[in-house]
Amino acid sequence: MGVFKQLESFSTGESLPLSQVLAELPWNPDGLLPAIAQQFDTGEVLMMAWMNAESLGETLRTGRVCYWSRSRQALWRKGESSGQVQKLSELRFDCDGDTILLKVDQTGPACHTGRRDCFYNRVSDDRVVVDKAVQIDPEELYRK
Amino acid sequence: MGVFKQLESFSTGESLPLSQVLAELPWNPDGLLPAIAQQFDTGEVLMMAWMNAESLGETLRTGRVCYWSRSRQALWRKGESSGQVQKLSELRFDCDGDTILLKVDQTGPACHTGRRDCFYNRVSDDRVVVDKAVQIDPEELYRK
Repeated sequence: MGVFKQLESFSTGESLPLSQVLAELPWNPDGLLPAIAQQFDTGEVLMMAWMNAESLGETLRTGRVCYWSRSRQALWRKGESSGQVQKLSELRFDCDGDTILLKVDQTGPACHTGRRDCFYNRVSDDRVVVDKAVQIDPEELYRK
Repeated sequence: MGVFKQLESFSTGESLPLSQVLAELPWNPDGLLPAIAQQFDTGEVLMMAWMNAESLGETLRTGRVCYWSRSRQALWRKGESSGQVQKLSELRFDCDGDTILLKVDQTGPACHTGRRDCFYNRVSDDRVVVDKAVQIDPEELYRK
C-alpha cells in the first residue's frame, strides 16, 4: 500500500518517516508538484508555484522557500532578486500527496507586480476587477 | 497586450469584461487550471483540484463549485456523492491567470477521507505526522 493510503487511515499523531513519503511523491510528468503559499498567521493565500524534488529538499533543509521556475527552468529562491523572501513556517502534503501547502512568513509583496499577493483579479458579475493595490513599484523591487 | 498584462497595470477598481478574460485563460495542455479552495471566513485552505472551461463556467453560473475530475475524466460537482458541497463566495485569478482561487463555504469535510481539509500531513523534522482527525467516516459520507 502506498504511503498516502497508509496516512489516510492514521489517527492524529501517527506518523511515517519523511524519507519514505518523499520517495513516493507523485510528481507530474515534468517532475513537479504545485505548491500553495499561505501567510502563516493571517491565512492569506499569497501565490501558487511549482516545486521539483530539488527545490522541495532545499526548502526543507534551509527553511527558506525555493520553487522551480518553469519559465526559467531553474531553481527559484523566492526573493533572490526582489528581496521578498518566504520563511517556511510549516509544510504539508494533501491527502494524495500531489499538492504542497507552505505556511510561510512573507516579507513584503509576494507578487511580482508589487502587490501583497497574486490573487488581485476578482470576478464581479460580468467584470474582472483589480481590487488590491501595488505596495512597492516593481521597478523598485527588482532594482535591488 | 494580453489581458493579464493589462490587469497588472490597473489601479484598484479598474476592470475588464469577464468574457475577455475567460477567452484568454492560459489553460494547460490538458485544458485545465489548478483551483485552490479556501474557506471564505476562516481562511483555511481546504483542497486543490482542477477546472476546465466547462466546470469554471458552471461554477460561475450556478454559484456551486464544480471541478474537473482527472481520474474520472468527468465534471465533478463537489459534494454530488458526499453531500459536502462548496458554495462559491468569490472567484479570483492570479497575476498571470494560471491559478484560480475559490473562496467557498464548505459544508462539513472537504476531504474524501472525512477530514475538514486535505492538508493533514504535516512535516515535522524527519517525520510526516497526521494532525487532523476524521470528522465523518468516509463510509458514512459516501453512503448518502
